[in-house]
Amino acid sequence: MSTGTEQGRGERICLVVAYDGAGFHGFARQTGLRTVQGVLEDTLSDMLGMNIEVHGSGRTDKGVHARAQVIHFDLAYGPTADRMVHVLRRRLPSDIIPVSTLAVDSTFHARFSVVKKSYRYRLHLAPLPDVFTYRFSWHIREALSLPDMLQAATAFVGTHDFTSFCAAASPLEDKVRTVTSVNITRQGDELVLDFEGTGFLQYMVRIMVGTLVDVGLGTFRPTAVADMLYARDRTKAGRTAPPHGLTLWNVEYPIEYGGKVLDPTSVL
Amino acid sequence: MSTGTEQGRGERICLVVAYDGAGFHGFARQTGLRTVQGVLEDTLSDMLGMNIEVHGSGRTDKGVHARAQVIHFDLAYGPTADRMVHVLRRRLPSDIIPVSTLAVDSTFHARFSVVKKSYRYRLHLAPLPDVFTYRFSWHIREALSLPDMLQAATAFVGTHDFTSFCAAASPLEDKVRTVTSVNITRQGDELVLDFEGTGFLQYMVRIMVGTLVDVGLGTFRPTAVADMLYARDRTKAGRTAPPHGLTLWNVEYPIEYGGKVLDPTSVL
Repeated sequence: MSTGTEQGRGERICLVVAYDGAGFHGFARQTGLRTVQGVLEDTLSDMLGMNIEVHGSGRTDKGVHARAQVIHFDLAYGPTADRMVHVLRRRLPSDIIPVSTLAVDSTFHARFSVVKKSYRYRLHLAPLPDVFTYRFSWHIREALSLPDMLQAATAFVGTHDFTSFCAAASPLEDKVRTVTSVNITRQGDELVLDFEGTGFLQYMVRIMVGTLVDVGLGTFRPTAVADMLYARDRTKAGRTAPPHGLTLWNVEYPIEYGGKVLDPTSVL
Repeated sequence: MSTGTEQGRGERICLVVAYDGAGFHGFARQTGLRTVQGVLEDTLSDMLGMNIEVHGSGRTDKGVHARAQVIHFDLAYGPTADRMVHVLRRRLPSDIIPVSTLAVDSTFHARFSVVKKSYRYRLHLAPLPDVFTYRFSWHIREALSLPDMLQAATAFVGTHDFTSFCAAASPLEDKVRTVTSVNITRQGDELVLDFEGTGFLQYMVRIMVGTLVDVGLGTFRPTAVADMLYARDRTKAGRTAPPHGLTLWNVEYPIEYGGKVLDPTSVL
């Protein structure tokens, strides 16, 4: 039955990568543009001498960063998952960092097996922008009411129709999603907004953040968020926060697919 | 005697700027290359409708950042120092941040009036590079002996001939400089090296850092630094640390030129 361990191994490899989104036109491959998927596929195909197609846990928009984006691809033969991460570290450009690799069962799918995702959005609250953080946080000069933002944020938690918090052009039918938590933490002059949920729509985190900033500035009352959700109308919510403050923070899978091994905090 | 407050005001303006060095071929103007001085002179000249020449506290090399670079320029007429900083904030690209401006006496010179300068060098000590810090710190995978580095660093403090710690090609005659302090602080997985002195030679901080890293790795004994200084020979010292970990941190002037006002920490 066996066709030999080398030639016919046939493996599904799961790869966790971090990236600085500034130099990419988003995750998804686009002809003629530098994208994360494009660079990964080109590097892997070149390195392995075969055509490799990668599947991500989801797309990230142009300019959005990732601390832990999860992808998978199938390999007919080639180096083991363990060796591959070392080779990739030498081959990939400095703005994509391979964090870890894992050989997974063929039932694993980077997108369809996702159990939970988390995103972090950073605001830099100061009179002047900062040369060390302007690439990764949204600089806000005006004073924000943190209590109002905290109150407004609670309205997002739960299972809701997020049509008002989704790109208006999105063709998706079902816009019901579950946000399991929103945490807002002040760290010096940085305000860190952490969102966790079972799935997110296009621009959803950025529209939630933009709306929370509008609440913090006094443009909307904190109680207005519930009405915005109810309206199912993008024009009723606040602005879309810029992409460079957003980072795909973590993607969780069922424990049978490696559990802790896929948690980048166990490697970093 | 007066020719009118507007037309003949004639003022020397001191400007503090921060910059992300990654996008510049250093501070000093070079034909056809994007430099900090070039962008500042072009922006100011365009904004004020006259040819503006700026003088910096010193050059920074290609890739080196600044939290507080100080420059001065003379203005025959135009907006006050106070107004100028607001106009500049709208005009300059996002990788140069005008921190503050001050009208100064015509005896002030950004370079010749310097009393003290400080530089910060960041090392990132971790198995993997980090997507949020790789632009501003030197990633080191191997373990470093912090006690050895601390011991070696003390040899730099004082007045020494720093020929061994200066770019070999430097045409400067007098290579005696005074380093007033070297502080090494561990902050999580970051090692912060702060150098303060009355003046620094070309590459001097980067060669001191490269040598300290070589000491930390065990390539040189901590006591070897004194011999390196004594040798007055660049080939006897350690490697030159890469530019992207270095930041011009602060420039100090005599109290009569504004004192605290020129300290960016009072504005930031």
